Amino acid sequence: MTIRIGIVGYGNLGRGVESAVRQSPDMELAAIFSRRDPASISPLTPGLKVVSVSEAGSWKGAIDVMILCGGSATDLPTQTPEFASHFNVVDSFDTHACISDHYAAVDAAAKKANHLGIISVGWDPGLFSLNRLISQAILPQGNDETFWGKGVSQGHSDAVRRLRGVKDARQYTIPVDEALARVRSGEKPSLTARQKHLRQCYVVAEEGADRELITHEIKTMPNYFADYDTTVHFITEAELQRDHAKIPHGGFVIRSGVTGMNGQNAHVIEFSLKLDSNPEFTASVLVAYARAAYRLACQGHSGCRTVLDVAPALLDPRSAEELRRTLL
Amino acid sequence: MTIRIGIVGYGNLGRGVESAVRQSPDMELAAIFSRRDPASISPLTPGLKVVSVSEAGSWKGAIDVMILCGGSATDLPTQTPEFASHFNVVDSFDTHACISDHYAAVDAAAKKANHLGIISVGWDPGLFSLNRLISQAILPQGNDETFWGKGVSQGHSDAVRRLRGVKDARQYTIPVDEALARVRSGEKPSLTARQKHLRQCYVVAEEGADRELITHEIKTMPNYFADYDTTVHFITEAELQRDHAKIPHGGFVIRSGVTGMNGQNAHVIEFSLKLDSNPEFTASVLVAYARAAYRLACQGHSGCRTVLDVAPALLDPRSAEELRRTLL
Repeated sequence: MTIRIGIVGYGNLGRGVESAVRQSPDMELAAIFSRRDPASISPLTPGLKVVSVSEAGSWKGAIDVMILCGGSATDLPTQTPEFASHFNVVDSFDTHACISDHYAAVDAAAKKANHLGIISVGWDPGLFSLNRLISQAILPQGNDETFWGKGVSQGHSDAVRRLRGVKDARQYTIPVDEALARVRSGEKPSLTARQKHLRQCYVVAEEGADRELITHEIKTMPNYFADYDTTVHFITEAELQRDHAKIPHGGFVIRSGVTGMNGQNAHVIEFSLKLDSNPEFTASVLVAYARAAYRLACQGHSGCRTVLDVAPALLDPRSAEELRRTLL
Repeated sequence: MTIRIGIVGYGNLGRGVESAVRQSPDMELAAIFSRRDPASISPLTPGLKVVSVSEAGSWKGAIDVMILCGGSATDLPTQTPEFASHFNVVDSFDTHACISDHYAAVDAAAKKANHLGIISVGWDPGLFSLNRLISQAILPQGNDETFWGKGVSQGHSDAVRRLRGVKDARQYTIPVDEALARVRSGEKPSLTARQKHLRQCYVVAEEGADRELITHEIKTMPNYFADYDTTVHFITEAELQRDHAKIPHGGFVIRSGVTGMNGQNAHVIEFSLKLDSNPEFTASVLVAYARAAYRLACQGHSGCRTVLDVAPALLDPRSAEELRRTLL
């Protein structure tokens, strides 16, 4: 019996879930649910049903886990609790400051309907959170730092695009090698934003735009760029298409800590990701946690969970016996 | 109410547990149990009780989790099931080929007595197994490699010490940088033992010993050295004491995999450890999992678990709410 997956929202993340499910022998795609006109959507998978999201309710019983692929700003805060009333759900809610509220809303809805929800799944929050937790629990006397990149920041790219005279733009966040080396050495440096990350902007300017003004406006933009060393490169639209079409990302969680009666021995735990496609990787994490949500629900559990609460063996299609035999 | 910990076996690992428990505000050390004459043992912690292991039974009810710090070859196969009849237990059993049998024995004893046991805790098996599992579940179309070192291999050091004319020796296992780089690049190379690791031996020879013969015997020793590029350095006993007294170790688990409808996007997940003291770090992992064993037992669970079965939040003393708020 395969796990029947529904995809809610068919953007980059939804398409990533579609291809990740196809790599999962224990899963099948049931349908895509979209707010757009279903006739306007051509799934990558021939024959896969596309349904208006307003009709999702009639799919109760035909879908084991709904994977919610909308945005954290406006979609997920209402969508995840709503869908948790009818389905087991997984989402990638990533507004760090609002996770406790979102958890409470999903927990209440899921418990009432006897469903299982896992929220804030992905890599940060997600796998990075998991590694912070495990490394802090093992080395309580220590310090950890997270570095992001090299990768495209959607928020910073958007901020540049909003400037007058900018036609299109891509912003990369890049960890500073020297800072990485200092943290890895166990030095526990106190690093400013500027010392940890560089920002690199590729900008397509409109014809006749004042490039010096654009550069100045970017570099002095509060919150987004003013606290960082930022470089601005003007390129053509064709160059942007050719060289900056992918959405790579990644990063590092590094914890250093000490053990021994006098803290005489130092240890470094490092977890890192290097991703060609941020949405496809996030989707792959969502699909693994959808498997866990299904299994927890089958075991009679309900309510909300995060990656911190899920036993790792639940993520893998193999049996507990096989995992012990092959991985330990 | 603090978690009362007993330590069974007071070698390097037991001493590591002792110092790790002292970093844990929710735990206290109840006693050390040893096969040696208790009067001959001076714990690092003033006033800590040392008891003959034969009297452990009378501590039932006074200890929440026993951490078994004996060896995998002869101690743990009998000790862990035995102690699981009287206590919740955690061990670092690391004979990979025998883990399934050990699991079955501990599971039967623990279930019968309504206790909880977690076996094969440490970093390999342990944290490395966890990372293999998570990265395989997320990137099912991929390949992973484990590298060990730079670190002291006790087994290889012993093999050199057994040679005629060798007074003492230390063997380091060292990952080959080029192999690491190829795996990180996502290349999925098929690597021989020789291509993955170097072996470096520091040998104190007895007076008048034939150093050329010793070098030859090391380099051609089947299983241990013949399949590797091995270097042999002769040093004095004083140099061995001064430069090779620590027991460092570490390693890398690197998985590369692809996503997308045509596998067009590549991703690399890497987990690595750099440890000044192998036994102290292993002990710190044992102590975090002892916390999980206690909590699982309190929730009414019994039987055997491995790191693959334990939800990460159980490892940390903080509440689930605080973890969500601070780590996600």
